[in-house]
Amino acid sequence: MILDGKTLKQKILDENKKIINDNNYKIKLAIILVGNNEASKIYIRNKELACNYVGIEVDKYLLDEETKEEYLIELINKLNSDNKITGIILQSPVPSQIDFNKCSGLINAKKDVDGFTKENIYNLYLGVDTILPCTVKGIIKLLEEYKIKISGENVVIVGRGNIVGHPLSLAMLNKDATVTIAHSKTNNLKDITKKADILISATGIPHLIKEDMIKENATIIDVGVAKIDGKIVGDVDFLNVSKKAKYITPNPGGVGPMTVAMIIDNLIFMYERGIKNG
Amino acid sequence: MILDGKTLKQKILDENKKIINDNNYKIKLAIILVGNNEASKIYIRNKELACNYVGIEVDKYLLDEETKEEYLIELINKLNSDNKITGIILQSPVPSQIDFNKCSGLINAKKDVDGFTKENIYNLYLGVDTILPCTVKGIIKLLEEYKIKISGENVVIVGRGNIVGHPLSLAMLNKDATVTIAHSKTNNLKDITKKADILISATGIPHLIKEDMIKENATIIDVGVAKIDGKIVGDVDFLNVSKKAKYITPNPGGVGPMTVAMIIDNLIFMYERGIKNG
Repeated sequence: MILDGKTLKQKILDENKKIINDNNYKIKLAIILVGNNEASKIYIRNKELACNYVGIEVDKYLLDEETKEEYLIELINKLNSDNKITGIILQSPVPSQIDFNKCSGLINAKKDVDGFTKENIYNLYLGVDTILPCTVKGIIKLLEEYKIKISGENVVIVGRGNIVGHPLSLAMLNKDATVTIAHSKTNNLKDITKKADILISATGIPHLIKEDMIKENATIIDVGVAKIDGKIVGDVDFLNVSKKAKYITPNPGGVGPMTVAMIIDNLIFMYERGIKNG
Repeated sequence: MILDGKTLKQKILDENKKIINDNNYKIKLAIILVGNNEASKIYIRNKELACNYVGIEVDKYLLDEETKEEYLIELINKLNSDNKITGIILQSPVPSQIDFNKCSGLINAKKDVDGFTKENIYNLYLGVDTILPCTVKGIIKLLEEYKIKISGENVVIVGRGNIVGHPLSLAMLNKDATVTIAHSKTNNLKDITKKADILISATGIPHLIKEDMIKENATIIDVGVAKIDGKIVGDVDFLNVSKKAKYITPNPGGVGPMTVAMIIDNLIFMYERGIKNG
C-alpha cells in the first residue's frame, strides 16, 4: 500500500488554511537562503507556495554565495527580535564559510520552525513536547495517518544526519520504538535492515535499499533525494521493494510533501504558543 | 575475559594523582545530595575517597529530604559563580518535589562533571568534543583499554535512561557503532540482544540478560545495580553468561569503578580547560 504524502499534505493544508482564516492569524515566515543551490531554490519555492495557500506571509532573504557568517548572524538576530516574524528557516546546505549548526543554533528557539536549535533538540532528547524537525514530524504523521504501529516495533533508520536520521532516532525512541541507527560505517547493513518492521532510509544514495534487504510486510519510508539525469531518485528501489513491503512511500510524493506540510503545522503551533504566553 | 574496571580505575587514579601533584592543580568538587537515599550515600562516599586519593578537595552539601526546589536552585547558582569550585554534582535520584532534569540543567555547563546539561548533551548529539557523562565515558575507556572494536559493530543498549542508556547511545554513534536502543516496550528483546557484538545493559532488572540472549563471543557490559538481600546484583546472569561471552564486566567491579575514575578525569579536563581559557 502506498503511503500517499501528497494527498495527506493537501488535507493538512486545507485544515490549516481554515484554522488560520477562522482565527484571523497573522503568521509570517522568514526564509534565508545563502548561495545558489538549485535544489534549495525548489524546496523554498514549495514552502512558499504552501504558505501562500494557507495564508501565511513569507519574507525571503536570498543572500549571495560569498556572504560572510557575521552578516548572516546579524540578520538572524534582527529576525529574532522582530515581533512580526513567527518563524525563521535557514535553508541547508550553506556555503563552506558558514557553520550551519552554529548559525541555525542562533535562531530563537521559539522561532525555530525546523526544530534544530539546542533548546529544541534537548527537549526532544528529554522527551518533552517540543517543536519537531519538519521531516521527522512528517514521517510520524504519515505513519499515524495509516495507523502503523510504532511502539515496541523495530525501527531501523539508515543515515545519521542532523536534518533527519539523528533527530528521527530520538523521536522514534520517544514513541517507544526499538530504534537502530545504521550508517556508512555499518558492517552488515542487510542483516540490520532485514530486521526492520519500519525501515527509514535517509542517505541520498540512489536505490541503496533493495528487495532482498527488507522483511516481508515491512513499512518502508524513503527520505533520500538524489538526482540522476535530472530525475529525482530515492534511496529505495521502489519497483522491486514495493512488491514485498506492506506500506511504502513513493519518492517523490511521500515524505517530501509531508515536510512542507509540517512547516505550516509548526508555524501554527508556534504562533498559538506565542498568543498563549502573551 | 574479565573487563577489570577496578584495576583500570586504580591505574587512572594513579596517573591523575601524578598530574594533579606535578602541576599543583587546585581542583575542588561540590557534591549535592538531597535526602537520605542509602545507595546515593555510598556512591558519594566512593567519589569522595577517589577525590581524596588524587588530591581533589570535596565540599559536600547534604540537604534535607524536604528541601524546596528554589533552595536547591539558589545553592547551584551560588556554586556556579564560586571561582574556587571546579565541578558540581547533583546526586540522582532526588525527592519528588524536585525536578532533576531542570535543576541539573542549571549547573554551569563548564562545571557539569556529569555532562547532563543542555549544552553538553547538545554537543554530544552534534559529535563535538565535550564533557561526557561519567558512566558513558567509563564504558568507552574500558572497551578501549581492552582494544575492543566499536566502529561498525552492533552495539545494543538495553535501557534508555538519561543517566546511562540514552547518552551512551549518542556517544556510541559518535564512535561509529551501529546502535540499537532497546527498553521496556521492546517486543522481542532476545532477538535484539542476540545480534549484539557489544551488549550493554542498564536497566536495574536483576539477571535480565541470560545466556541464551547473547551471541557467542560477544562483549557484555553490565551497568545495572539492584539489591537482593543486601547484595548488589547486576542486569547480567554472570555465572552463565560469562561462559559464552568473550569479554564481560563483573558487577560490582566493572563499570562502577570506571564511573568514579571518570569523575576525576572530567574534573581535570574541566580544570585544564579553565586554565587555557583564563
